[in-house]
Amino acid sequence: MPKEITLCSPLDMHLHLRDGDMMKLVTPLTAETFSGAVIMPNLVPPVDSLELLLAYKKRILSSLGGHQFDPYMMLFFRGDYTEAELAAAKEYMLGIKLYPAGATTNSEAGVKAIDAVEPVFKMMEEMGIPLMVHGETHGFVMDREKEFLASYDYLAQKFPKLQITMEHITTADAVALLDEHENLRATVTLQHLIITLDDVAGGMLDPHLFCKPIAKRPEDREALLQAALEGHPRLMFGSDSAPHPVEKKECCGCAAGVFTAPLAIARLAQLFDKHDKLDNLQAFISDNAQRLYGVEPAEKLVTVANVPFEVPTAYTGHDQHVVPMHAGETLDWNVTSIKA
Amino acid sequence: MPKEITLCSPLDMHLHLRDGDMMKLVTPLTAETFSGAVIMPNLVPPVDSLELLLAYKKRILSSLGGHQFDPYMMLFFRGDYTEAELAAAKEYMLGIKLYPAGATTNSEAGVKAIDAVEPVFKMMEEMGIPLMVHGETHGFVMDREKEFLASYDYLAQKFPKLQITMEHITTADAVALLDEHENLRATVTLQHLIITLDDVAGGMLDPHLFCKPIAKRPEDREALLQAALEGHPRLMFGSDSAPHPVEKKECCGCAAGVFTAPLAIARLAQLFDKHDKLDNLQAFISDNAQRLYGVEPAEKLVTVANVPFEVPTAYTGHDQHVVPMHAGETLDWNVTSIKA
Repeated sequence: MPKEITLCSPLDMHLHLRDGDMMKLVTPLTAETFSGAVIMPNLVPPVDSLELLLAYKKRILSSLGGHQFDPYMMLFFRGDYTEAELAAAKEYMLGIKLYPAGATTNSEAGVKAIDAVEPVFKMMEEMGIPLMVHGETHGFVMDREKEFLASYDYLAQKFPKLQITMEHITTADAVALLDEHENLRATVTLQHLIITLDDVAGGMLDPHLFCKPIAKRPEDREALLQAALEGHPRLMFGSDSAPHPVEKKECCGCAAGVFTAPLAIARLAQLFDKHDKLDNLQAFISDNAQRLYGVEPAEKLVTVANVPFEVPTAYTGHDQHVVPMHAGETLDWNVTSIKA
Repeated sequence: MPKEITLCSPLDMHLHLRDGDMMKLVTPLTAETFSGAVIMPNLVPPVDSLELLLAYKKRILSSLGGHQFDPYMMLFFRGDYTEAELAAAKEYMLGIKLYPAGATTNSEAGVKAIDAVEPVFKMMEEMGIPLMVHGETHGFVMDREKEFLASYDYLAQKFPKLQITMEHITTADAVALLDEHENLRATVTLQHLIITLDDVAGGMLDPHLFCKPIAKRPEDREALLQAALEGHPRLMFGSDSAPHPVEKKECCGCAAGVFTAPLAIARLAQLFDKHDKLDNLQAFISDNAQRLYGVEPAEKLVTVANVPFEVPTAYTGHDQHVVPMHAGETLDWNVTSIKA
């Protein structure tokens, strides 16, 4: 008998489903093995009203391919949301996602940009609406997350009851900050537990491992991995799985994003097993998120076993063609049974 | 009258001309504006005998397109060269290029790998043959040069009369080391005076700016630029211009190398003028190399003026298609006259 583990209701707390044909291709690839996922609102135009949110949710629900799946919706942060807008939207969303476009290389300026929208944070804190943040400045690519940490620190202190998620953290410094404030939590992707900048640009340039935030140094990966393996109570799996058409990846000037949704559970099981920490995978991939966000996903029992999984070279359909991480490679673990 | 400067006998102290059709395309693009260049011996198979060196030089001389140009040849380092081999080759080459394939992430191990071939360094020192080194370990991509500096330091002390060139330096630490030992000199590329990792991977991934060693941090670029602008007496221009067919660049898994030969002089003039250091360009682009290597290139007077230069989107010919740095952009300076 191969070694195996049964996960209860896996959750992906940071997911890009896109829209249109791409959404139709990738949504079932997540909905098959996950009970639910937090859906990023960065469409064009962004999902920044209840009306747009409900319409997007409806399109997602029509793309599930028959799988049982809960899309946890988010609003795209705007500095001018009114209390009435937030009150109306609250029951339909998990939180609001902030992309701090105004932040600069200077973290003080980053905080200043945040200053201007503090009334919205105050409302969110009082109404119990979580804030999810893409925490990067516009500085040097290897420093962007670290420079933003002062903003997280400021927000966590200024709004002690605001639930703040540091999305897709990539540095040892972010892991350290997580332990500083009880109202901070974080997501981390599959790839940032596995790769460093070496894998992106140390040999040949690999566009399929290019993402934002960019993969950092070996000591950063090590800190992220240790926190995940130990089942850190405020660290959650968020794939940031981000499909792009292949022509936007394998070209001069490639778009950022790694597509991991269809293989994330198998690859995580392989990783946790390698470090003899399989028992902590349930916390990382579901329990922490359920407790932190108070979500109660429908039960889905996903068994993963130590059997080979040949990752397709691409996922195609609906006129789309997406190349996943580990394309064409054979993983040591695979999903062997799903009971919804 | 636009501002202008006349350079005397520009030299490119680190150049890849490749072979075959690519050599036929790119050689005239350097030979037109440079008096001479140091030709890298990393063909497949490598140029590691006098016979191969003379044959390669002959092929280069037949590809000049009518321009006056001296190819300064190099042998590819081997640990088993005999004194007789080196004595026979000495008058036909400028030096020997070492790619320390045995070096590892650990700089001590790097030195150890170098240990084993010290008899060859001893012969080179005694015969007055310069050693050119690709100074990178196999460590994390941003640390490879820094980790190798201990090996340079060791070699410079152990062989005080061996002339050692740190090729294509990319870090502030390498600039600092240059000042530690009189027998160290260095080359630096055009792109490392201009770009950082941000330009390669901070926005979209740009394969045309991907090279080895990879572009580093802003403070590294600043240190390199200041040393070049001040005409540091042991720093020389070496383009490391490295043409690849476009299909090896704009693809999944792109090869390392930036093609700058046809625009290097114009872009350097623009850069030095921007910092009000045009007077130091002659030292950087020729005089330092002439003095350090004792070469006496044929006189070629190259005038560069503050007039627009539309960089082609590609250089094509001999069934080759190469995309240069700044493809399709307009530079502020251009070569306006060449007198050979």
